[in-house]
Amino acid sequence: MSETREPELTHDVHPDDKLVVVKESPFNAESAAPALVAPLTPREAHYIRCNFDVPRIDPETHRIRVEGAVAGTLSFSAADLAELPQRSVTVTLECAGNGRTDMAPLPAGEPWSRGAVSTASWTGVPLGVLLDRAGLRDDVVEILATGADRGIPSGADDELPFARALPLDKARDPNVLVALEMNGLPIPVEHGAPARLIVPGWYGMASVKWVSRIAALTEPFNGWFQSKRYVYERGSDRRPVDVMRVKSLLVAPETGGTVPRGRVTLSGWAWSGAAPIIGVELSVDGGEWMPATLDATLAPHAWRRFDLEVELDEPGRHSVRTRGRDAAGRTQPDVAPWNHHGYGNNGIVPTLFYVL
Amino acid sequence: MSETREPELTHDVHPDDKLVVVKESPFNAESAAPALVAPLTPREAHYIRCNFDVPRIDPETHRIRVEGAVAGTLSFSAADLAELPQRSVTVTLECAGNGRTDMAPLPAGEPWSRGAVSTASWTGVPLGVLLDRAGLRDDVVEILATGADRGIPSGADDELPFARALPLDKARDPNVLVALEMNGLPIPVEHGAPARLIVPGWYGMASVKWVSRIAALTEPFNGWFQSKRYVYERGSDRRPVDVMRVKSLLVAPETGGTVPRGRVTLSGWAWSGAAPIIGVELSVDGGEWMPATLDATLAPHAWRRFDLEVELDEPGRHSVRTRGRDAAGRTQPDVAPWNHHGYGNNGIVPTLFYVL
Repeated sequence: MSETREPELTHDVHPDDKLVVVKESPFNAESAAPALVAPLTPREAHYIRCNFDVPRIDPETHRIRVEGAVAGTLSFSAADLAELPQRSVTVTLECAGNGRTDMAPLPAGEPWSRGAVSTASWTGVPLGVLLDRAGLRDDVVEILATGADRGIPSGADDELPFARALPLDKARDPNVLVALEMNGLPIPVEHGAPARLIVPGWYGMASVKWVSRIAALTEPFNGWFQSKRYVYERGSDRRPVDVMRVKSLLVAPETGGTVPRGRVTLSGWAWSGAAPIIGVELSVDGGEWMPATLDATLAPHAWRRFDLEVELDEPGRHSVRTRGRDAAGRTQPDVAPWNHHGYGNNGIVPTLFYVL
Repeated sequence: MSETREPELTHDVHPDDKLVVVKESPFNAESAAPALVAPLTPREAHYIRCNFDVPRIDPETHRIRVEGAVAGTLSFSAADLAELPQRSVTVTLECAGNGRTDMAPLPAGEPWSRGAVSTASWTGVPLGVLLDRAGLRDDVVEILATGADRGIPSGADDELPFARALPLDKARDPNVLVALEMNGLPIPVEHGAPARLIVPGWYGMASVKWVSRIAALTEPFNGWFQSKRYVYERGSDRRPVDVMRVKSLLVAPETGGTVPRGRVTLSGWAWSGAAPIIGVELSVDGGEWMPATLDATLAPHAWRRFDLEVELDEPGRHSVRTRGRDAAGRTQPDVAPWNHHGYGNNGIVPTLFYVL
């Protein structure tokens, strides 16, 4: 095996206008409020979720194996993958733990506020292309992706790699990619270089970073990140986290920001893993819900812009709540169902700002 | 009637290190985070709750009448009251709506965050002294205090004054004052000059500002601020807001603040209207509850200081929750019972800050 390089992370722990660091090691950071105004989040401002330290990978020698219940095992370098048919998909990714600190009682886990959501354009090989080349056996039920990152998770006894499975039909979705590029440039190391699975519509844990192994399984996967974490757990009820719940985020004015009195444009993003966003309503200062204007859809798996111009003549603090609705008939709830690890919090929250 | 002066409010609507304005008119402001570190909140940083505009009062000619079911009606100027026996009480006042924006769904009302709580020393005449001088009839059940401020409340049809009643036994509590001084100086106009009722242990709405009338009632008062607002309302259930629920507030590190890694002292205040604080527990980053050290009691009706030194070596965001407990056996709940107007929110909330 060749010499590997120490990953170079240049992030400072001081919150800035790109990232707000939640944990330095393993590195976890939210997108800062100013970075969430743009439709595409810059690479250096996209939220980062690491379960373990960034692995040392030599992109020249790193291999992505396709194996398990397949006709023939395959192995690709990143350069090999770049020779295959490429596809670009613009995807809103949200960490399953985003909004955890708005849940009560506070569940254990990274103290994500509301910025663990970002949108980027990812380019790579559809996972289905690799599965077809390997030749799936008829009894395959799930496709397991394993990252090169490993460690002993909090609560576990043994070292294990990050690994997450997809049902076969989702794995065959042509928009599920083994991505090599993020916003038209190579994926940064902390985002999973050289190759990262991208699973549009699902919470971020499914988009396995630093992919090293893709395995066709004939039995459902039951590993740590499928059965002990990234699971909606409440009492004896357990269900793996999967599709992103319908949600919305006000980005302008930003939390705690100030605006001059008069006409104020309230803007933000709404997204859902289940279906397109078809409505966003806003409530100002606890008042009636008012429909916002929706922009044209950016991309099928990206958040959708909403705007509403209102008159705010009263100096002081104002609150705005946003409520997204999707074509599957789902609407954000006042309070999302509490669960032990604090996943999927899409409850309606007020954003507070000041009129001067 | 003599010429009255325009009240002079010098507060700027820009949030500063003393006050954060919630509404300019009528004026409502929270104490800013830095001002909440001290045991006694400076007069210019004490939270301000106004239901109506500050009334124009000439303190020279303003009268406080004591009437109703009494042997003899009395009338005092502020100067008259200053000639009577004085008493000083250090009191933590909390607005009943404090923490409203942490409730979900967001109740209508002023968007108070967590700073509508302050502590000051108030000096004045015990209300009981005035009641004794007037001579209460045997059938008196409540004492009604009416302020000089008036207006049409949101949701009401008619102009009415701010007025709130106390049960007779509470009104006779020797610590209930008709106060003339705040922190040893005349009460500022926005805090109720020249005379304000101070009701230790009760939410702030009972401490009627700009007192102009004290009336002995033989039937319970059923006015707007007793039956329509400052009422815990949920479905058909209604109960007037009264005693402050047990609660606590982390003041250092402050929300969103930064501290160097290493030993960090977590400090704050806990209070309860029902009984002395006898314990505060803290949970760091969702971990086990740990008992904090309590300072000596500042005063019977004032908040109590708690401190806990912890080691925070991990750079990034940290969360601290605080949970107060009083001698009446009450403990802060994970989530306070929701009510239509959002009063009495003493649910446990996380404070987020950063270790660098």
